[in-house]
Amino acid sequence: MLALLFGAIVIAVCCVIILIFRILDSSPGNEETIRLSEMIQKGAKSFLFQEYAIFFPIIFVIALLIFIFLNWICAISFIAGAVFSSLAGFFGMIIATKSNARTSWGAIKGLPSALRIAFSGGAVMGISVSTLGLLGIGLIYKLTRNVEYISYYSLGASFVALFARVGGGIYTKAADVGADIVGKTEANLPEDDPRNPAVIADNVGDNVGDVAGMGADLYESYVGSIFSALALATIIDARFTDAIFALVTFGLLSSIASVVITLTAGKKFRDPSSALRFGTILSSVLVAVCMFVYSAVINLYNIFFVVILGIFVGVVVGFVTEFYTSGKKVINLAKSATMGPANSMINGISLGMESTSVVTVLIVLVVLISFRLLGLFGVALSAVGMLSTIGMSLSVDAYGPIADNAGGIAQMAGLDSKVREITDKLDSVGNTTAAMGKGFAITSAALTSLALFSNYANVAHVSTLDIKDPTLFTGAMIGAMLPFLFSALTMKAVGNTADIMVEEIRRQIKEVPGIISGQVQPDYNRCIQIATKGALKRMVFPSLLAVISPVMTYFVLGPSGTAGILIGSTVSGVMLAIFMANSGGAWDNAKKYVEEGHYGGKGSLTHRATVIGDTVGDPLKDTAGPSINILIKLMAITSVVTAIFVGR
Amino acid sequence: MLALLFGAIVIAVCCVIILIFRILDSSPGNEETIRLSEMIQKGAKSFLFQEYAIFFPIIFVIALLIFIFLNWICAISFIAGAVFSSLAGFFGMIIATKSNARTSWGAIKGLPSALRIAFSGGAVMGISVSTLGLLGIGLIYKLTRNVEYISYYSLGASFVALFARVGGGIYTKAADVGADIVGKTEANLPEDDPRNPAVIADNVGDNVGDVAGMGADLYESYVGSIFSALALATIIDARFTDAIFALVTFGLLSSIASVVITLTAGKKFRDPSSALRFGTILSSVLVAVCMFVYSAVINLYNIFFVVILGIFVGVVVGFVTEFYTSGKKVINLAKSATMGPANSMINGISLGMESTSVVTVLIVLVVLISFRLLGLFGVALSAVGMLSTIGMSLSVDAYGPIADNAGGIAQMAGLDSKVREITDKLDSVGNTTAAMGKGFAITSAALTSLALFSNYANVAHVSTLDIKDPTLFTGAMIGAMLPFLFSALTMKAVGNTADIMVEEIRRQIKEVPGIISGQVQPDYNRCIQIATKGALKRMVFPSLLAVISPVMTYFVLGPSGTAGILIGSTVSGVMLAIFMANSGGAWDNAKKYVEEGHYGGKGSLTHRATVIGDTVGDPLKDTAGPSINILIKLMAITSVVTAIFVGR
Repeated sequence: MLALLFGAIVIAVCCVIILIFRILDSSPGNEETIRLSEMIQKGAKSFLFQEYAIFFPIIFVIALLIFIFLNWICAISFIAGAVFSSLAGFFGMIIATKSNARTSWGAIKGLPSALRIAFSGGAVMGISVSTLGLLGIGLIYKLTRNVEYISYYSLGASFVALFARVGGGIYTKAADVGADIVGKTEANLPEDDPRNPAVIADNVGDNVGDVAGMGADLYESYVGSIFSALALATIIDARFTDAIFALVTFGLLSSIASVVITLTAGKKFRDPSSALRFGTILSSVLVAVCMFVYSAVINLYNIFFVVILGIFVGVVVGFVTEFYTSGKKVINLAKSATMGPANSMINGISLGMESTSVVTVLIVLVVLISFRLLGLFGVALSAVGMLSTIGMSLSVDAYGPIADNAGGIAQMAGLDSKVREITDKLDSVGNTTAAMGKGFAITSAALTSLALFSNYANVAHVSTLDIKDPTLFTGAMIGAMLPFLFSALTMKAVGNTADIMVEEIRRQIKEVPGIISGQVQPDYNRCIQIATKGALKRMVFPSLLAVISPVMTYFVLGPSGTAGILIGSTVSGVMLAIFMANSGGAWDNAKKYVEEGHYGGKGSLTHRATVIGDTVGDPLKDTAGPSINILIKLMAITSVVTAIFVGR
Repeated sequence: MLALLFGAIVIAVCCVIILIFRILDSSPGNEETIRLSEMIQKGAKSFLFQEYAIFFPIIFVIALLIFIFLNWICAISFIAGAVFSSLAGFFGMIIATKSNARTSWGAIKGLPSALRIAFSGGAVMGISVSTLGLLGIGLIYKLTRNVEYISYYSLGASFVALFARVGGGIYTKAADVGADIVGKTEANLPEDDPRNPAVIADNVGDNVGDVAGMGADLYESYVGSIFSALALATIIDARFTDAIFALVTFGLLSSIASVVITLTAGKKFRDPSSALRFGTILSSVLVAVCMFVYSAVINLYNIFFVVILGIFVGVVVGFVTEFYTSGKKVINLAKSATMGPANSMINGISLGMESTSVVTVLIVLVVLISFRLLGLFGVALSAVGMLSTIGMSLSVDAYGPIADNAGGIAQMAGLDSKVREITDKLDSVGNTTAAMGKGFAITSAALTSLALFSNYANVAHVSTLDIKDPTLFTGAMIGAMLPFLFSALTMKAVGNTADIMVEEIRRQIKEVPGIISGQVQPDYNRCIQIATKGALKRMVFPSLLAVISPVMTYFVLGPSGTAGILIGSTVSGVMLAIFMANSGGAWDNAKKYVEEGHYGGKGSLTHRATVIGDTVGDPLKDTAGPSINILIKLMAITSVVTAIFVGR
């Protein structure tokens, strides 16, 4: 199976290279679009390098500790996880910033051409993430045949992911909120207007947050789920190890095939959203067919059922997210905004909280059914199944910010309004897929956490919890509190950085009157620096919290307290993440619904109320919410590693 | 010890009778204040009777089931718990509505006289609640010597409490929000203006929500904590049973003494808040001294330490709540409102979420230390210790809405503006004590839940939880989701009822022009009916959720799943409740801070932003938040009863 895996990796690498050449082949446009694109790339690169300069020293210190207390293989695995994760994000970001101007230029030729470039850019990211993940795991497993080392790899990946998500999340939302408050509300500039001093920072934010941050995020979900499945498989049955490698190999190949088919057949679809949906469903069908054949060959159909269950629920959660963040729900939310911003806030909060119920029931069903079919390994495998076509689904996710950037560049470079129409269409599809991707990320995080929790139980040798030992309960209490504290810190980071940004934008507009009249170019770099500095300064503490708290709990409250902290953080974190994603998504779309001309349209009081909702929702859905997914997994993997370490 | 308890109860009854006579002795004022007070009382009575008409049939059906499957003692205990709880709320409400006009009339003579009447009214409620709670428990224990029956008593109390809290909470906030949106914002009427059609409904709301609802709430906390301590004591050591009765007896007597001293010495304090603080601290010191002597006599000092710990942390949590809802935190929140409503929302949410950390650490410390001293019984005893002086602390809590109502009556009856100044002063003290009371209620709920959880473990015979059995995890997931769903439902109930209220107020103002000019009295009853109908219709489903979900979980997922649901609901519920209470409290006070003239004062854009924050915070802090405390305890006690039932 491993040989097949490496074969698939070679195919994937070839595919990525071809995609890159095809992207670079298309025209980056005129001088202006090239200049803008390079400015965005420069800003994003500079942020990522400064981010690495902060967290790689921490990583090397941890690696050194691992080397001193354990051995060099563990240390190297840890570093490899961190480096590969950073590479995936960095690489995706570079290609995304190469694709943005090309997409806007391609839009001159029409929608299919623009879609092709933007989706190719996303696909580079999607396929790279899964390839790099599998390469690391495959190599470690081939060389050592010891799953324990993969835990360090996974730890490295999670560690980087949290920093990347939190840092990128703070950056993107601080720039976005800052640009909106002064630019849109006070100076009445349209979105992506070159006169807005924060406009480049805003576009950089899309790349460092939604591309690099999300890449690292899904990379760690993928690696974490595969690790937990492998760890459980080695204890139970060697056949299961093969099944996991088969599943991820088929998943990678199915994703590549779907990407290629979407790119070639994409023109036949009039509507970009149906093209992307077709590709996503195709990849799921392909992997399902492969797994059916595989299960038939090894005569263990339960593997097929569990994988199908994971894939199916992943899709259903997407629809549930869509249900809560579009259609009737959003119309009702927009209607409640006619009674003022307070009403829209209350209804939005209540909508997000209500949505936790359906997603919870779905997660519970997956867990119980897959457990019945294959035990705890089944739960882990269903998570891997859900994430197996990540190559395709991440391509769709990463396509969004590229389309968004393309629109920004078109606007700033003053391209034809038809171009902007096309990029807007691409962008709005991206918003829907982003919302669905969030539901998917939360569900897979919940399943992966549970699987990691079982691994923790194995390595910490706690098979039962004493119900009368209050450490379980107090641990759960602390665990449940952490996502709240973590959200508070990241939201405050966005708020504080946005405040500084607002002041800087106001200062520039006030001191240099030529900016608003369009004669003088604003000082974009100052805004980029503010976002960079703010994000980097404020990402460290919340991120370290995730690592330090389970370790401290382990030493203070013992293994049972750590079990408690994992249960508490997972259950409260999942609820908060669902609530934040769906409230935020619904507010965002309610604003768009009003902007389409309903309930008074743009400029009305109702519109103002929905803008407030959207601004509140932004840090919830794009900073705090997605980071919680990584928080709970990083806490789980840290506990696993701590228990392994202590157990030696 | 039981004889002493009944002695204390007799003293308490005498004290309540004297207090009532003294209240009735003071003048209810002129024709207008009497008319207003009677209108409020009529509205409140009518709501409570309709509420009883809805939940008593449900209670009798459950009692019948208990009778059929178990025996008549259980059924009667259950009914007694429900009836006593309702009585406590009803009685408190009647006296509160007798005291309101008298307080405003008393304010003519000066602040001490008004304080005396309002606090006497609160004290009737405070002492009645603890007396009724102890009477029920004492009688059942004396007659049966079987703690199991007290679980049914506690179940009855919790059941009523949840209905009363949810129903009252929806009523009071729907009326408040409705009155504010149209009255204050649209028609520019001041607070409590008789031209506002919802003004009487708003004042009725204070009585049914903040008096009757809160009375039933603390009644059930008190009974629940005593039950769980007794249940643990009977297993461990008979001496502990005596210690509990000693503690509650001393607590009742200390409360009575403190009430009497506060009333007689109250005039010596210039400032009402120091008088009330003095009384509160005095009651804690008195009970601590008594318990020290008692511990010395039975030579078991750990009892003293645990009780002191509970009392001390109760006080510290109060200060933490004060820290987050006043002073620098509130000034910063008000400052962030200068950047618009979205900023104030984000910062307010983040403030509340951050505050969960300190409270969690405090709860964890109490649990771990009291467990070390006296095992699980210690945890239960610390909760009883915290609640032992409920007679005094509830007197302070219930005084707030009476002062609030007195202010409303003074305004509506057109009394001298000096009267309103005095009642405003009394009211603002009430707001602080109410915020502190919330922190206290959450902390004691967390401790009581843990103690009930241990009882559940005993009766369900689950001493260990299999960590690899996913029912624990899935149960915790469902448990964590329920407070979110529950909050969504109650908040939506407030929103929907408020919407209908808004339409009715707008209709009246539009159709009858004489209302705004003050020539025609608005149709108060229509608004009262809307609030009543809305609250009663929408309280049933969320309340039943709390009873049905643990029972269903027990039968579907088994005892371990139910353990999971209890852990999950407690940890996520406690976090949500802290978050909601403190965000709401901070928004409320930020608005008041701006109204005092800071950052532009009344009418400024900043003021508008803080009004939005306050309106969003209202259903969070006064409807959803406090109900969650009861939700988690009702789920726990339902699980205990279900396990006892199945175990037979």
